[in-house]
Amino acid sequence: MLHNILQNKKVILASASPRRKDLLNLVGVKFLQIPADVDETILSSDHSNPRRYAKKIALKKCELIAGNNDIECIVISADTIVYQNKKILGKPKNFDEINEYLTLLSGKSHIVYTAIAVSYKNNIIVDVAKTYVTFKHLEIDEIRQYIETKEPIDKAGAYGIQGYGSQFIEKINGCYFNVMGFPVNLFLQIIQKIL
Amino acid sequence: MLHNILQNKKVILASASPRRKDLLNLVGVKFLQIPADVDETILSSDHSNPRRYAKKIALKKCELIAGNNDIECIVISADTIVYQNKKILGKPKNFDEINEYLTLLSGKSHIVYTAIAVSYKNNIIVDVAKTYVTFKHLEIDEIRQYIETKEPIDKAGAYGIQGYGSQFIEKINGCYFNVMGFPVNLFLQIIQKIL
Repeated sequence: MLHNILQNKKVILASASPRRKDLLNLVGVKFLQIPADVDETILSSDHSNPRRYAKKIALKKCELIAGNNDIECIVISADTIVYQNKKILGKPKNFDEINEYLTLLSGKSHIVYTAIAVSYKNNIIVDVAKTYVTFKHLEIDEIRQYIETKEPIDKAGAYGIQGYGSQFIEKINGCYFNVMGFPVNLFLQIIQKIL
Repeated sequence: MLHNILQNKKVILASASPRRKDLLNLVGVKFLQIPADVDETILSSDHSNPRRYAKKIALKKCELIAGNNDIECIVISADTIVYQNKKILGKPKNFDEINEYLTLLSGKSHIVYTAIAVSYKNNIIVDVAKTYVTFKHLEIDEIRQYIETKEPIDKAGAYGIQGYGSQFIEKINGCYFNVMGFPVNLFLQIIQKIL
């Protein structure tokens, strides 16, 4: 298990995400959190291949932090993308965009991708998890009430699955932890390969 | 949304489960927690219909607490069942049973059912959510290490999806919150019907 495999390793989480921190804590891994400041806007014109886009950003973050630290460190980074109607939905810029995103997601399934990159010694592995998320139909009133909770503001796709947003999710197909931003089982697979 | 609909209602959660309490808190519902002490062993011989079994127990819990309180109260109860190979897996009695359950779940999909019962005035509604959960293949060492974490001891099916167990879950199909013990979207649907 992860807490046994990583017991005596130096582990760095190259992400500022509190949800990724929580998930690594849940599985008993000890780590240092060093956010990687990568400009995601340079890459964001490429909406045609969300899988490749997520991989690129995860790799950039991982390489940046790995380059500044001992090669004995295990550096972990991730990038999560909400994909609907051939469009990558990032963090909404304003209330109009929150409204637009939630209307797009209402009553339909969308895809969440999370790429995880792990570097150790001179190796780096990156892989992607894919999960389908199905939203119930949202009434205009529900969207308004949801915006009032302020939850959508800083979330990719303008929703959080682990909060008020949970009541909108009819079902998912794939890894749940991917939707939270860190597919734990995929991470275990990568760690078993790289060590 | 739930926190708006239930704003001025007296809500009772007839369950001792800390995970159900957390989920109701997450969606902003104010409630009183009054666990219903129902003897589940009387009913547990009926493994042939897990859906009916879960409904029976949720109803019993709901009726017990509703009977002791004002009919203006909204009383919520739930029962969660792990079902594999035509057998209901409850909380394991000892280490041998933990080992038996985890070996049964390894490398396969099982089903989790949660029945939710809600009573209000003279009505009661009960319904069931169904989710498929797929485990990775577990090595003997992984089962031993997982038992050492003590996480399986008090969990139906001998695993917790929200902890060390998360790394074993390859994918789910259905409501994730059902697997945590409280399918939030189903609860919203029931509340919209009963009020």
